[in-house]
Amino acid sequence: MPKEIKIGIFGLGTVGQSVVEQIRVNGLLIEARTGILPRVIKAVTANPHKPRSVDLTDIEVSADPNFILDDPEIDLVIELIGGCDLAKEILLTSFAKGKAVVTANKALLAVHSREIFGAAAKTGARLGFEASVAGGIPILRMIREGLSGDRITGVSGIINGTSNYILTQMSEQGQSFADALKDAQALGYAEADPTFDVEGIDQAHKLLILMNLAFGGLFSFDQLYAEGITQIESIDIAMAKEFGYKIKLLGKAIDRGGSYEGRVHPALVPEDDLLAAVNGAFNAVSVEADFAGHLMAYGRGAGGHPTSSAVVADLVGVIRSFKGEAPPPLSLLPDRLVPKEILPIGEISSEYYLRFSVLDRVGVLAKITRALGDQNISISSMIQNERAAKAKDAVDVVIFTHQALERDIRKALEEIGQMDFIARPTKLIRVDSP
Amino acid sequence: MPKEIKIGIFGLGTVGQSVVEQIRVNGLLIEARTGILPRVIKAVTANPHKPRSVDLTDIEVSADPNFILDDPEIDLVIELIGGCDLAKEILLTSFAKGKAVVTANKALLAVHSREIFGAAAKTGARLGFEASVAGGIPILRMIREGLSGDRITGVSGIINGTSNYILTQMSEQGQSFADALKDAQALGYAEADPTFDVEGIDQAHKLLILMNLAFGGLFSFDQLYAEGITQIESIDIAMAKEFGYKIKLLGKAIDRGGSYEGRVHPALVPEDDLLAAVNGAFNAVSVEADFAGHLMAYGRGAGGHPTSSAVVADLVGVIRSFKGEAPPPLSLLPDRLVPKEILPIGEISSEYYLRFSVLDRVGVLAKITRALGDQNISISSMIQNERAAKAKDAVDVVIFTHQALERDIRKALEEIGQMDFIARPTKLIRVDSP
Repeated sequence: MPKEIKIGIFGLGTVGQSVVEQIRVNGLLIEARTGILPRVIKAVTANPHKPRSVDLTDIEVSADPNFILDDPEIDLVIELIGGCDLAKEILLTSFAKGKAVVTANKALLAVHSREIFGAAAKTGARLGFEASVAGGIPILRMIREGLSGDRITGVSGIINGTSNYILTQMSEQGQSFADALKDAQALGYAEADPTFDVEGIDQAHKLLILMNLAFGGLFSFDQLYAEGITQIESIDIAMAKEFGYKIKLLGKAIDRGGSYEGRVHPALVPEDDLLAAVNGAFNAVSVEADFAGHLMAYGRGAGGHPTSSAVVADLVGVIRSFKGEAPPPLSLLPDRLVPKEILPIGEISSEYYLRFSVLDRVGVLAKITRALGDQNISISSMIQNERAAKAKDAVDVVIFTHQALERDIRKALEEIGQMDFIARPTKLIRVDSP
Repeated sequence: MPKEIKIGIFGLGTVGQSVVEQIRVNGLLIEARTGILPRVIKAVTANPHKPRSVDLTDIEVSADPNFILDDPEIDLVIELIGGCDLAKEILLTSFAKGKAVVTANKALLAVHSREIFGAAAKTGARLGFEASVAGGIPILRMIREGLSGDRITGVSGIINGTSNYILTQMSEQGQSFADALKDAQALGYAEADPTFDVEGIDQAHKLLILMNLAFGGLFSFDQLYAEGITQIESIDIAMAKEFGYKIKLLGKAIDRGGSYEGRVHPALVPEDDLLAAVNGAFNAVSVEADFAGHLMAYGRGAGGHPTSSAVVADLVGVIRSFKGEAPPPLSLLPDRLVPKEILPIGEISSEYYLRFSVLDRVGVLAKITRALGDQNISISSMIQNERAAKAKDAVDVVIFTHQALERDIRKALEEIGQMDFIARPTKLIRVDSP
């Protein structure tokens, strides 16, 4: 029987259900990484009898917060109910009772940061909040642990998927703000009351958390400047494009040598900046560090699975810290590491770019395409660069294939290589399909 | 007197010197994050008397490895000499003597991974190797700690700056491979013998380390397929462009449900893929995880400062693990966190996009530009959208300013807002200057 960590979850919405699912699906993997099996034993939600799509077997559900808070068996509390009142009580009570806490609650941490972090420090409680900023991107860990030897001088980014989706639609589909918002609501990207997302408030919550971490201070949320995207019109997007910019809702914080900028507002971003390529519901965070230089992390900022990924990473962090051990170098416990085999290159499949240097004779293309077809390789496009000036000059024929097994491609190229019109070895470059 | 961790460094090349510099510059910051001051007390290098640009005061330098290895005072060994023979001996001896090790040596870890990780596990020694893959990007921590609850299903990326610089030059400047290589050598991006970089071997070393970590296995370097960029010709780059692709040297590993692809080769990457926008000496690593989804991290892959950033982050990780403590939630020790102020928005400076809706009268532009000039705001470009159909219709005038203080902009806009030709409130959007 492996050792267990017992977990109580507040909130069984999209994220809460995904956390339950992820712990079921990857529980044994986590055990292989830490030696400890995570197990959700209780959940508290306002509607304990509402049917859920996730398997709740072996999880007791109640509407009473004390069902979890008073249970001495529970080592770790996951808070996913949002809001500031009950959530704050849950955190403070959990700290006081020696329970570790993992939360996704950016509003709480931004508005009450001094109280929450103060209480965590005073009680020595573990507090994880990776999920509060940019869901699936482990940006807090990147700063706290990956840049732990650097002084951070700036953080900026696109950290609200809803507003970024709306701006992307306005820019790419020519939609008005109102229409793009309606679409975002229909797709579940925006809430019925979209104020927090479109007025920059959600983004400001996250920026404040990033500033506290990056600059090692406790900033006051009231001082943060926040302006949303409701005033952006199609003509602004068009004019920006004319000058080589895209409009993005940016959160931006700069250490100006001991005084600090912190602001959320739409901004014109140069089209060749990586941030300009962050579209739809994706997020990205840029960091400037004195030794690492410029870095950026990109990924899914919201949604059940990406957010639960952050929650569960915090859970693993808590387990590792309970054990007082550093994470193993290769993540798995050393005795779980096994030799593994890499497939021979012939076993991969890919699309291929093939460039044949051929003498310009009748029937060349037919012979090449037949040799490819004999190996079940189908062609997606083909181009002949130019005709040869003289019969003995080679011309280039480029063929893009559909997905094919490399073994088959090599067999076909070997056969083609022996044909008498081939002037130079054929060039093969694989096409990366994301 | 703060507590100290005593460090010995092997190698005083670019990275070694930068590590010494970073520990001097950010030592107190690290103390504020961990309670422990890092101090380099000894260095070993083949040329101990060679003058260095970094301040070596209080650091004893020798050519004898035992000068560090036999010193019981030294808690942590940083190995930056590269190669496999002496470096392996240094690691194994350090493990045996209970010293923690931080290394940037990708060849050693890729080719001898079973022996090195086996010895670390057997002795319980701490081993940090963030610097071995993609310098300034904390990709190993992102996977090990940020995605610790996810199953990783794929890793791919541009993890060799030299070859990426060469391909970027070929693509953007139309250079041949030979010319681009010569430039890379002149700029210090490529070594006199560039084999490891241009034949994909360096990239393969790094990919093997990523695979071990991401897939929780010990793979054999010999099974990894590696193909470089020496055969890429200008015509291939041109043909790729014609079909909407860029050519990049990719390292790519995929978990195909228990069998594994691992390969390094040039690939055609769709132009709208983020990896296609990774140019010059920058690196980027993409990860696919079962819950987090698709993520990417981007940053400087090589060079003294970015690499030392990774070395020092490992050093901080070792300190934190010695103390058996989790990293503090906000990175600084709680008692070092102080309230900090955010500047009022008027104090920021930016370039601005201003859109004025004006009635189409004589002298309008003169009045606007004079009001801006009165606040020392200079104009970088201006466009009038179209002329009004009738005298009472408003037209849009867009002005981009040079850098200006927001306070001045607001003063000017307030004045302009009172002018009688202003038809609607002026739109202000800040321009993000990277």
